[in-house]
Amino acid sequence: MSTLAYLGPEGTFTEAALRSFAPDAPRIPCATVGAAFDAVRRGEADGAVVPLENSVEGAVNATLDELAAGEPLLIHGEVLLPVSFALLARPETELEDVKRVVTHPHAHAQCRGFLAGTLPRAEVFTAASTAAAAMAVSDPTSHYDAAIAAPIAGEHYGLRALATGIGDRPDTVTRFVVVRRPGPLPPPSGADRTTLVAFIADDHPGALLEILFEFAVRGVSLTRIESRPTGDGIGRYFFHIDCEGHVSDARVGEALTGLRRICANVRFLGSYRRADGAAPTLRPGTTDPDFTRAAAWLTSIRAGQV
Amino acid sequence: MSTLAYLGPEGTFTEAALRSFAPDAPRIPCATVGAAFDAVRRGEADGAVVPLENSVEGAVNATLDELAAGEPLLIHGEVLLPVSFALLARPETELEDVKRVVTHPHAHAQCRGFLAGTLPRAEVFTAASTAAAAMAVSDPTSHYDAAIAAPIAGEHYGLRALATGIGDRPDTVTRFVVVRRPGPLPPPSGADRTTLVAFIADDHPGALLEILFEFAVRGVSLTRIESRPTGDGIGRYFFHIDCEGHVSDARVGEALTGLRRICANVRFLGSYRRADGAAPTLRPGTTDPDFTRAAAWLTSIRAGQV
Amino acid sequence: MSTLAYLGPEGTFTEAALRSFAPDAPRIPCATVGAAFDAVRRGEADGAVVPLENSVEGAVNATLDELAAGEPLLIHGEVLLPVSFALLARPETELEDVKRVVTHPHAHAQCRGFLAGTLPRAEVFTAASTAAAAMAVSDPTSHYDAAIAAPIAGEHYGLRALATGIGDRPDTVTRFVVVRRPGPLPPPSGADRTTLVAFIADDHPGALLEILFEFAVRGVSLTRIESRPTGDGIGRYFFHIDCEGHVSDARVGEALTGLRRICANVRFLGSYRRADGAAPTLRPGTTDPDFTRAAAWLTSIRAGQV
Amino acid sequence: MSTLAYLGPEGTFTEAALRSFAPDAPRIPCATVGAAFDAVRRGEADGAVVPLENSVEGAVNATLDELAAGEPLLIHGEVLLPVSFALLARPETELEDVKRVVTHPHAHAQCRGFLAGTLPRAEVFTAASTAAAAMAVSDPTSHYDAAIAAPIAGEHYGLRALATGIGDRPDTVTRFVVVRRPGPLPPPSGADRTTLVAFIADDHPGALLEILFEFAVRGVSLTRIESRPTGDGIGRYFFHIDCEGHVSDARVGEALTGLRRICANVRFLGSYRRADGAAPTLRPGTTDPDFTRAAAWLTSIRAGQV
Repeated sequence: MSTLAYLGPEGTFTEAALRSFAPDAPRIPCATVGAAFDAVRRGEADGAVVPLENSVEGAVNATLDELAAGEPLLIHGEVLLPVSFALLARPETELEDVKRVVTHPHAHAQCRGFLAGTLPRAEVFTAASTAAAAMAVSDPTSHYDAAIAAPIAGEHYGLRALATGIGDRPDTVTRFVVVRRPGPLPPPSGADRTTLVAFIADDHPGALLEILFEFAVRGVSLTRIESRPTGDGIGRYFFHIDCEGHVSDARVGEALTGLRRICANVRFLGSYRRADGAAPTLRPGTTDPDFTRAAAWLTSIRAGQV
Repeated sequence: MSTLAYLGPEGTFTEAALRSFAPDAPRIPCATVGAAFDAVRRGEADGAVVPLENSVEGAVNATLDELAAGEPLLIHGEVLLPVSFALLARPETELEDVKRVVTHPHAHAQCRGFLAGTLPRAEVFTAASTAAAAMAVSDPTSHYDAAIAAPIAGEHYGLRALATGIGDRPDTVTRFVVVRRPGPLPPPSGADRTTLVAFIADDHPGALLEILFEFAVRGVSLTRIESRPTGDGIGRYFFHIDCEGHVSDARVGEALTGLRRICANVRFLGSYRRADGAAPTLRPGTTDPDFTRAAAWLTSIRAGQV
Repeated sequence: MSTLAYLGPEGTFTEAALRSFAPDAPRIPCATVGAAFDAVRRGEADGAVVPLENSVEGAVNATLDELAAGEPLLIHGEVLLPVSFALLARPETELEDVKRVVTHPHAHAQCRGFLAGTLPRAEVFTAASTAAAAMAVSDPTSHYDAAIAAPIAGEHYGLRALATGIGDRPDTVTRFVVVRRPGPLPPPSGADRTTLVAFIADDHPGALLEILFEFAVRGVSLTRIESRPTGDGIGRYFFHIDCEGHVSDARVGEALTGLRRICANVRFLGSYRRADGAAPTLRPGTTDPDFTRAAAWLTSIRAGQV
Repeated sequence: MSTLAYLGPEGTFTEAALRSFAPDAPRIPCATVGAAFDAVRRGEADGAVVPLENSVEGAVNATLDELAAGEPLLIHGEVLLPVSFALLARPETELEDVKRVVTHPHAHAQCRGFLAGTLPRAEVFTAASTAAAAMAVSDPTSHYDAAIAAPIAGEHYGLRALATGIGDRPDTVTRFVVVRRPGPLPPPSGADRTTLVAFIADDHPGALLEILFEFAVRGVSLTRIESRPTGDGIGRYFFHIDCEGHVSDARVGEALTGLRRICANVRFLGSYRRADGAAPTLRPGTTDPDFTRAAAWLTSIRAGQV
């Protein structure tokens, strides 16, 4: 059974995602995304589960940047996890006792309505993660009364949920990815996603447009594009991209070679089944048989057989 | 030695083009472009020389349309011929005797300055070709005094040049192509042209833009594009295209497969050395080694070797 | 009542088009498109009717080129006329007597099926126009037995139709335009067309793409685009364009200013009601109210009122 | 003198940016970007200074999101501040005493080389900001020995710099913006930037391409584009954009109206002088006089004066 590293500590949403995906896998909590990836690179774990983006907070930059650098890794799958916050306290605490709440700033931002309505006078303190907040509350000497965290954190730290589903947007979702060392790709499933990073060749105004054209002309839709700084100064970016389809699809493969030719570098980060199961709507002329027929035609005309 | 059909009668500019290209080839003059092509298709000629476009008059529609229909043929080469008009008369005629001039309307249009300046009172009559005009004048009972035609027509019909170089634009050029039955293509020379016809899949507003994108994204420049009616009604066209490069070039090949996939039909009409010897300026990422490297990279990433 | 010049002689399809459009207008037949335009420029006619394109033969290059040069004129309307050929002969001639047929080469090309089936042994001769062919046949001493021409030519030259509707494609249509001296444009009708000529600033590979973008980004569809040589050498072209909509439409106006900014020159040739009455399907964001709202918004934000 | 709110507490890089820009302005430190903006909205401050992006860490999402929502504000200027980290300690602490370091995770990430080389055995702890880390160290009972923070934090909290310039990338820069209530814009300077947010009309694959076209066709270059989640689910984004030029420039104004027409909403966030003083290179046909001439031409042709 594969051992999976994940962004810890125990009780994070990432742990919940991991368990929804591989309930029985041995787990190694890691302090950072980079540490989880390094555990995989060193062979201490077979894979790592990390958050990639959240429907409210956006991309997880640490994940984007760690995927773009260091020894290459490949995404093998993704998990979509609804983000459901709970107000967790020590067993003896009642809701009316809660004066001091601790949580991560993102969770704070997503539970403002609940706090204003139910705990209008509570003070809110900051922790490094929602799990760290829960851990802090679990200490009987803590001066915090409650934590806002994932329900799973209550289980880990022996806390009781005073309230659940307290996020302002009940439909918030986080997308997690499962990353492994390079090796055979998951086979195409008909509803796949491909992730890559494109470093532009020189930083000219039309570079992004050229990148988008390489996809558009082969009928490949992007599902996410993020610009990230290269570190070489304000105004210098690379692009972190998800597109629909599998690199073994002809249209995706040709788009990627186009990108490879015009970019300084392209890092392929994997093709894997979409968690939402959404199959692409293909534009006429972009199916694999269309590519095969066109290639056969090219062979003929190059031989002067017209 | 190959026998070449050409757009006759004897004494046309096309004959001059043919002789500049293959001085000693047996020649078969034909009444129309279609007849010249049919002579090749039936094997009566090994090739046909026909005009494709003129720097003043534009495309020769009969050639465009005959190339787009019927049994396929391939262009194997091109010739650029300066168009130089002469005023041709029977040996005894002097310039001051010329009252009635006969020529083809295109030649008339291109010699207006000479006629207005030198023969302001001459009447101008119409013939089916400049060569036909010269032939008519060569008849001693003709009521025409002179013809405007190619100098070569004087040679054929025993006429004398009363004036030469009488075109208003001395730099006018006609481009002729040499067409053969399908067979091995001329090898790439580094300064080639590829000709094709694209029939759009359904007549939608963005169709031309999509066609241009297929070339642009692979860095292939068009050198000529003509729209021609399909015959199915006003507003329905196909496109007759020249691009730089040889179909054996990776960028041209991929552009053509792209076109093939999005169009209802593409007729390849040949890759051949440009008469002007102009080599393309390649955009970064579009050379054959760029394509080869990108294809090798795609093979690697598809195998999960990143 | 306006006097209209037209491409003659009497009995041409152009005369038929003119009469369908303005049955009672005094008419001046002219030998060439240029002569008809000059009659308008000199004030001898109030307008000119000339053919612009045919659904089988394509653009009428003389019309394209004459519109692009000389003193400006404006198209005020268009007429679509089905092209119906008749076999015309002197009253005493019977079908079985017809051995020698005269016509214009385009008409010959379009009646090949009839000739092969009904008059397989007839010789075909060339005239400068179908009307000239009919006129020639009307001469009792003519050695031609019949002409292929417009039915209207029979009326003019006292000929009898031995057969009608003899074209191979019964749905062939020619589009004629009515041209006037510059002056107020026809008002927008909701189903308009705009015609213009674009001279590119310098002859670079992407020029056509840039022109198409100026239209596409404002949601204006092209209905015809022709490349014509500038006369400055093979490979140097200008573009003759029809787009849907009226120049008074905001989207068309903005597209034209965009074109004007990037081109060396743009010649506006008129906005006028389409003969087919086809109203454009507007893309969201491209109606006049959309433009008005966006302009009001721009005024606000420039004033810092956001 | 204007009072300026800023992202505090005292001693942050933001305070340093503010002081480089307005050394003598009264200052109000705020706990969050949102709080600083609210201070402006309520009139408690005349402006707010907040970080927008960092050359290593990328965009500051809180700033992007707060600018995109709530009562509108306008950016009036920007400041580029080199990010220089110092190791700050209580006066009596020597470098060899440092066992426990506290800082913000971003600062930690940017000083890894220094920590590995100089303090390989130090433990690193997390604070909510570098200034909060310095404040914590300034407490004589703190169990932290030193903070990594801005030099300005040493000044505020009575700490001594044990080392300065300890970032791994000495050229790291943060871009800050000065935000005010809506009102007259800064006048164009010839080297301006415009910031805006575009909400796409419906989430279709080509939406980003369409947005980029609106800029590209008017020759306006983007200098930054970020996608941010709308909060409505994975795969639904809005775009946060910087382009070169001032909204009073004709090309920028027209691009923005184009965007306004095709997007569900566009929030204009200001035009202001670039801190780097870089003037745009204008493509031919995109200067204000080009727009003026084209507009005059449009007026003429709409009147039929050609």
